[in-house]
Amino acid sequence: MVPLPDAPYLKSKLPQCYRGRDNCQGAADLDISPPSAFTWLVQKGDKSAEHRGDKSAEHRGELIQPRIPKGFRDFLPEKEAERLSIVRKLQSVFERFGFLPIDTPVLEFAEVLLGKGGGETDKEVYRFTDHGGRDVAMRFDLTVPFARFMAAHLEEVGLPFRRWHAAKVWRGENTQRGRYREFMQVDFDVVGTDSASADLEILLLMRESLAALGMKSFTIRYAHRGAFNACLARLGLEARSVEVLRTIDKQRKVGAEKTRELLAGIAGPAAASEILEFIRVEETPAATLRKLSRLVGDGVEAIARLSQVASALDRLGIAGTFVLDPSITRGLDYYTGIVFESFLGDLPDIGSVCSGGRYNDLASLYTKQRLPGVGASIGLDRLMAAMEELGLAGGSSARSSVLVLFLDDSLIGVYHEIAQGLRAAGIAAEVYPEKKKLTHQFAYAEKKGIPLAVLYGAQEAAAGTVTLKDLTSRESYEGLAPADLPGRARELLR
Amino acid sequence: MVPLPDAPYLKSKLPQCYRGRDNCQGAADLDISPPSAFTWLVQKGDKSAEHRGDKSAEHRGELIQPRIPKGFRDFLPEKEAERLSIVRKLQSVFERFGFLPIDTPVLEFAEVLLGKGGGETDKEVYRFTDHGGRDVAMRFDLTVPFARFMAAHLEEVGLPFRRWHAAKVWRGENTQRGRYREFMQVDFDVVGTDSASADLEILLLMRESLAALGMKSFTIRYAHRGAFNACLARLGLEARSVEVLRTIDKQRKVGAEKTRELLAGIAGPAAASEILEFIRVEETPAATLRKLSRLVGDGVEAIARLSQVASALDRLGIAGTFVLDPSITRGLDYYTGIVFESFLGDLPDIGSVCSGGRYNDLASLYTKQRLPGVGASIGLDRLMAAMEELGLAGGSSARSSVLVLFLDDSLIGVYHEIAQGLRAAGIAAEVYPEKKKLTHQFAYAEKKGIPLAVLYGAQEAAAGTVTLKDLTSRESYEGLAPADLPGRARELLR
Repeated sequence: MVPLPDAPYLKSKLPQCYRGRDNCQGAADLDISPPSAFTWLVQKGDKSAEHRGDKSAEHRGELIQPRIPKGFRDFLPEKEAERLSIVRKLQSVFERFGFLPIDTPVLEFAEVLLGKGGGETDKEVYRFTDHGGRDVAMRFDLTVPFARFMAAHLEEVGLPFRRWHAAKVWRGENTQRGRYREFMQVDFDVVGTDSASADLEILLLMRESLAALGMKSFTIRYAHRGAFNACLARLGLEARSVEVLRTIDKQRKVGAEKTRELLAGIAGPAAASEILEFIRVEETPAATLRKLSRLVGDGVEAIARLSQVASALDRLGIAGTFVLDPSITRGLDYYTGIVFESFLGDLPDIGSVCSGGRYNDLASLYTKQRLPGVGASIGLDRLMAAMEELGLAGGSSARSSVLVLFLDDSLIGVYHEIAQGLRAAGIAAEVYPEKKKLTHQFAYAEKKGIPLAVLYGAQEAAAGTVTLKDLTSRESYEGLAPADLPGRARELLR
Repeated sequence: MVPLPDAPYLKSKLPQCYRGRDNCQGAADLDISPPSAFTWLVQKGDKSAEHRGDKSAEHRGELIQPRIPKGFRDFLPEKEAERLSIVRKLQSVFERFGFLPIDTPVLEFAEVLLGKGGGETDKEVYRFTDHGGRDVAMRFDLTVPFARFMAAHLEEVGLPFRRWHAAKVWRGENTQRGRYREFMQVDFDVVGTDSASADLEILLLMRESLAALGMKSFTIRYAHRGAFNACLARLGLEARSVEVLRTIDKQRKVGAEKTRELLAGIAGPAAASEILEFIRVEETPAATLRKLSRLVGDGVEAIARLSQVASALDRLGIAGTFVLDPSITRGLDYYTGIVFESFLGDLPDIGSVCSGGRYNDLASLYTKQRLPGVGASIGLDRLMAAMEELGLAGGSSARSSVLVLFLDDSLIGVYHEIAQGLRAAGIAAEVYPEKKKLTHQFAYAEKKGIPLAVLYGAQEAAAGTVTLKDLTSRESYEGLAPADLPGRARELLR
């Protein structure tokens, strides 16, 4: 018999009529497939492992390395189960707050993502020309697509609009800094309002999100860009603002003394003192607010806003989680109002896992409708790294609880009946798929972390009972009535 | 004051230090941002709507159309909530069966996805050269990446391995046929075993998946490629097999008489009769099996396998959902064993929403380890269309249950306290973000489908009570003690 071509190679020609792609639509699909893909069809009898083996040996001289591009990752079951569990927990928080899910395409027009003139300097964007000659790019964040989405669907969704979006984004960054080129973000925003209530809502949501993931000692630090800008303007430091901000941003790393020295070098010792005074966190938010008023003047809207937020947090009895910290400067080129970052008390060096702020106008590139808003973003990869370090990860493995052992080919229906009975009782169960040595089957259970096994062989079949085995204690429970199996399994799983 | 550049345009220069991208890592991030992005920083005072308005008017001469490429879609909240709900239900079925989640990169090396020689004819694949000169492509299905994944992680995951994967894939197909270029698939496979038990497991999983989504009258039709090939070989029709298969595939559309005519034209009237005899579904699976044995010979392994599966389905008491239908021919160039498709009784024309089959060797392009397996794929877009037609969609909107109305700026903390109290009781609640006319706030609730509203104004503040309003019946419940609010809301939500 003529050997068959290997399936994946054929699949690589994108036949329309296999299980992929909405599934087969009938004859129409066949018309696309190259006829050559069918020439071997009739030479194919029943499959036989030996015959396939021959073919493989012949074909396998030129194996392709199963590698993936740098900065990209496979998620193995344990990690992927954890990621799904995190997103699900966040989703349930968002739902409690009335935030709605949306999704947008991975590919957008480059013009939409990068602006009309933009693009030539955007080396980090995965951008290309598609078959139709369209200049397209993969999204590099969830905010620009959200802006485009709002401009396109304003009437349909209405204002104010609260959305969350958990999805992958791509940036061809330098991976030497430990960054991924494919990573996941979880964004949540309220748009269509300038209100302090929306600022507060995002702060609450950040707090609830981190708490829902089991984080214990964290703080959310907030400030207001308006106050900082007013401070710099008063000192006549407009022209040196970038240097000043960079220096402040490094403070946590280099310490206060070094920061004073650097600031004095930029702005002179007096201004340095005033800046350090400005960014210092006082004993209470009220004291910090008084200080800010003194330094930048009472009438600044930013101070009033910070005051509103601080007293609402107080009223809610959760002020302890929040720190009014004027040194927070994030989003230099983006935020216009309140800004915030989260810090994990047990992992001070990991940086912020959830940050955001208020912006003046989300979608001015695409619509005349002004869309002020406030939002935050969770960097899921950093968050997962943090949870791993804190021992909060790994509890969400999707393994089965029971393995039904396969002892006899004639009992295949019974094995699946046993598994279905367990599943109906809410217990995840799987059948070992074929007759193999029991040591093999037990080794499989151990590798997968499956704690219980069911034995049903000739002896059990004769007696009409099943045997349940606790693979941890190695104890066996023989002579169980099939109806009692789920209950007993549940007891042992407790 | 010099107007500020609009935020999104600046964002399009990919600054490292806004909320995206793992969040800010401190000074290191700033080093990447182009200095020009900061020059306007100190000119920015507190934000002001009027001032922003001016700027906008100036900038907005050149609005970018917020359009997306053909074949791509935005998912608005209702649809996205439904999609999330479907995937979550499927996930819970997969977990009960011990199937594990994985994820793979959206971008892979083109060589990996398309094979070493492949590629030049793959007009449907989004393929490009990245900044590092790598020849990469976006995945066009979840099976080729799974094959690569298995070759790369065989030791880590062990065999047999059961996985599910719900993710987007991309194909630059002709959209005139109502197809999307970005769409979602949900795949599940058992690899590392040739067993009938694994075939059965995938059939069970298909059944449970459709049932979990509320599907009522569906059938899963199965056949075996080996039996069909043996039939064609006996008739000496190897050379005409493609035509024969296409003709059979059209049978559901053109009817039996036309099919006989076409087959006779290809193979002569006698062979046509035998083929029609072969593909006919008999009264019972047993009768169909006897017929197949008679037509292709007893010893064919395919018949034994079909017989094993049929009797296990019988034993499980679910044979009524399944039809042994020898006319199922899907996956011509891919499957080697059992094949199956699902049909919705109430939507005969929509085609299969979940299909699959057994393959001999998943990953022979990448590894010498033979990996036989069996799996299926759900086309989520067709499934969602089907659910919509069947009235099974739309029950999963993520809207809030209660809107806390905003009556007084000084009560902002109280409004959020009320909302937090409802959330703590498991009731999704949101605060209208600012003081606006009540008609506005009620219109918002109506648009979002929020059924209840809480009023807390000067009167309630004085009395220490809250008012709950049923927006459907328009009844008001005044004088409620705050502690009684969640209970009363829950009653009304029932």
